[in-house]
Amino acid sequence: MAVNLHIPQKSEIHPVAGVEVGTAEAGIRKADRKDLTVFRLAEGATVAGVFTTNRFRAAPVQLSERHLASGAGIRALVINTGNANAGTGEPGLLAAQQTCETLAGLLGIAPEQVLPFSTGVILEPLPVDRLTAALPAAVQGLQPGNWFDAAYGIMTTDTQPKITSRKVVLGEHTVTITGISKGAGMIRPNMATMLGFLATDAGIDAALLREVTREIADCSFNRITVDGDTSTNDSFIIMASGQAGLKVASRNDPHFTALFEALAEAALELAQKIVRDAEGATKFITVRVEEAANAEEALTVAYAVAQSPLVKTAFYASDPNLGRILCAVGYAGIADLDVSRTRLWLGDTLVASDGGRHPEYTEEDGQRVMKEAEIVVRIALGRGAHTETVYTCDFSHEYVSINADYRS
Amino acid sequence: MAVNLHIPQKSEIHPVAGVEVGTAEAGIRKADRKDLTVFRLAEGATVAGVFTTNRFRAAPVQLSERHLASGAGIRALVINTGNANAGTGEPGLLAAQQTCETLAGLLGIAPEQVLPFSTGVILEPLPVDRLTAALPAAVQGLQPGNWFDAAYGIMTTDTQPKITSRKVVLGEHTVTITGISKGAGMIRPNMATMLGFLATDAGIDAALLREVTREIADCSFNRITVDGDTSTNDSFIIMASGQAGLKVASRNDPHFTALFEALAEAALELAQKIVRDAEGATKFITVRVEEAANAEEALTVAYAVAQSPLVKTAFYASDPNLGRILCAVGYAGIADLDVSRTRLWLGDTLVASDGGRHPEYTEEDGQRVMKEAEIVVRIALGRGAHTETVYTCDFSHEYVSINADYRS
Repeated sequence: MAVNLHIPQKSEIHPVAGVEVGTAEAGIRKADRKDLTVFRLAEGATVAGVFTTNRFRAAPVQLSERHLASGAGIRALVINTGNANAGTGEPGLLAAQQTCETLAGLLGIAPEQVLPFSTGVILEPLPVDRLTAALPAAVQGLQPGNWFDAAYGIMTTDTQPKITSRKVVLGEHTVTITGISKGAGMIRPNMATMLGFLATDAGIDAALLREVTREIADCSFNRITVDGDTSTNDSFIIMASGQAGLKVASRNDPHFTALFEALAEAALELAQKIVRDAEGATKFITVRVEEAANAEEALTVAYAVAQSPLVKTAFYASDPNLGRILCAVGYAGIADLDVSRTRLWLGDTLVASDGGRHPEYTEEDGQRVMKEAEIVVRIALGRGAHTETVYTCDFSHEYVSINADYRS
Repeated sequence: MAVNLHIPQKSEIHPVAGVEVGTAEAGIRKADRKDLTVFRLAEGATVAGVFTTNRFRAAPVQLSERHLASGAGIRALVINTGNANAGTGEPGLLAAQQTCETLAGLLGIAPEQVLPFSTGVILEPLPVDRLTAALPAAVQGLQPGNWFDAAYGIMTTDTQPKITSRKVVLGEHTVTITGISKGAGMIRPNMATMLGFLATDAGIDAALLREVTREIADCSFNRITVDGDTSTNDSFIIMASGQAGLKVASRNDPHFTALFEALAEAALELAQKIVRDAEGATKFITVRVEEAANAEEALTVAYAVAQSPLVKTAFYASDPNLGRILCAVGYAGIADLDVSRTRLWLGDTLVASDGGRHPEYTEEDGQRVMKEAEIVVRIALGRGAHTETVYTCDFSHEYVSINADYRS
């Protein structure tokens, strides 16, 4: 029941030169499904990532950060679903390490050149033997055209694969950007999403790529919420193979802006796809907070609205019970908020002003907008010039069903 | 489907000397139900209150604060359900004022001696004419024994009345404490609950009562959450009529501690009753965070766990998917949390230690506790000596149904 989630044709997904993808069935949690994905990168690729701020960071997150910091030159990624390898202590770290070592042996690279990722249930031991036993099959299947399999391979409670691809002409070069993401619950990324992988054949200086990855996360994966739960495994990775011939070394490069925007657009699309396919979602909601004194308070208000169970159940019911939105604005935590200057729009309809309902607002206007599958909530605070936007979904019976039954 | 909510017999509810209660049907939102409650206090009573921190404070909240600050000597309270008179701007304030004026006229007191309270839908005009038309009937019905009617009279989505009563012997005096509360959704009080009223015939110095009311709110109504939504109308009031002959003028009074504890016990019972009757609740959950460096971080962690939709749906399903609790501890915001020192107990079962699952923990142990109707979650942070406790409930299909249908 994803909301307007576009799944491209296979022919629309462009392989990225210098990036190969392979998948396999490891039977981590369930049999007969591809739950293991491997990326192989050509020599010379640069890779950067941002990771969850959750203090119970999963073992693979800890190891990936360590390997990225080692400067070893990342040549492979390995991703399993079905088990998060989080809340697993020292044995979890050893399991992640063993995964890297086995893959490194198969590819003839060093273990530090492998980034591991896991997603699934927390607090259960990773069946690392089943995982490593399936690595040869994934490696054998490596080829540039396998992105669709990978998009399916990293799914958990996702109902749809999330994949995006585009070509951008930058001067004499045509650059390809292709990526995948997953995640449907436990979504309020704080530095990155559950899992997002973006690859380009443009070359990007390693230090620059680290900055760019963080900036892009902050305007895409760090602007979505499903249930406010920041996961233990959030990871967002950009890989730049450099095989397209174009090399961007600094922000002064004439192609920097166009490349940045194309990457950011792809990341935002992947992030929004997570919300469109969020557990139980029937509506895609954009919450835009304007006229804030600074970015932080804009985000605080936007998240208060986007995470309120009462606001989200009203959207589910298509019920313009919009006092709940004002209530969330009111408790967001701006101590000196002047409610008489706050305005609320639902779509283009002005709902509230001067601390109360706008005189021309009618229930019918609200009802009309609430019935749409995609709704924009705009809140102007009358305090400054900062705007922030957060993406969320409604809250349905289905969300409760999915999360009450997830492990069974 | 309230969880172990004790409804006393009528004979167990003791009238409070100097406090009369009357109710009436005003038809604010629905016909044929008592939706209007009036309290009349004897001359010389002291009254104190704490109110929501929501910036969209309801008109009656603004007026009650003003009247309490005026020092006029509060002699009456008036409470309506069916409409919150919040997000109603200047007309809302006028409606609340008109309510006070009408009641003051009927009782022969000044409008400043009346505290108004409203609860119900936000952003809709209060039908003040229907309210004031019913005031004479409520006044006519005033008598000390009407507490049960009042407990019913202030309900909204509550399925059960919330009422408590006790007698305490303090030296030669027997003091009575009786109170009511309401609230089932939009519950994360921040200063007080939706509505809580506690009366005693002890006398308490006005300035002391203000302090006591805040302190008691902080260990009762300010420690519960249903959905994390802090309402626009939260109000908690303590009335001390002084008719029992006992007068407590300062903290040095020999009876201060016993009286404080009895009032606090009554307030905690009323607050917990709100959680027991929370929208859709099937379980009553106590989240206790121990060994915190300070009270603030203990509360931050407790609320992160108590408000996580994923934790709450797991409780609903009786599924010991306890990694979700660790995950919430991890994202609560303690930047230097050492996860290897964190321990998690479910009831008496040690679930996690050393950053992972405790070696002796079994799924069966977790399952056994999860099936109980009342569950204690204990989290030790290994950082200090502060403990805080928060009360919450699970998250069910019924919560979504109630809040998707609330206005219809």
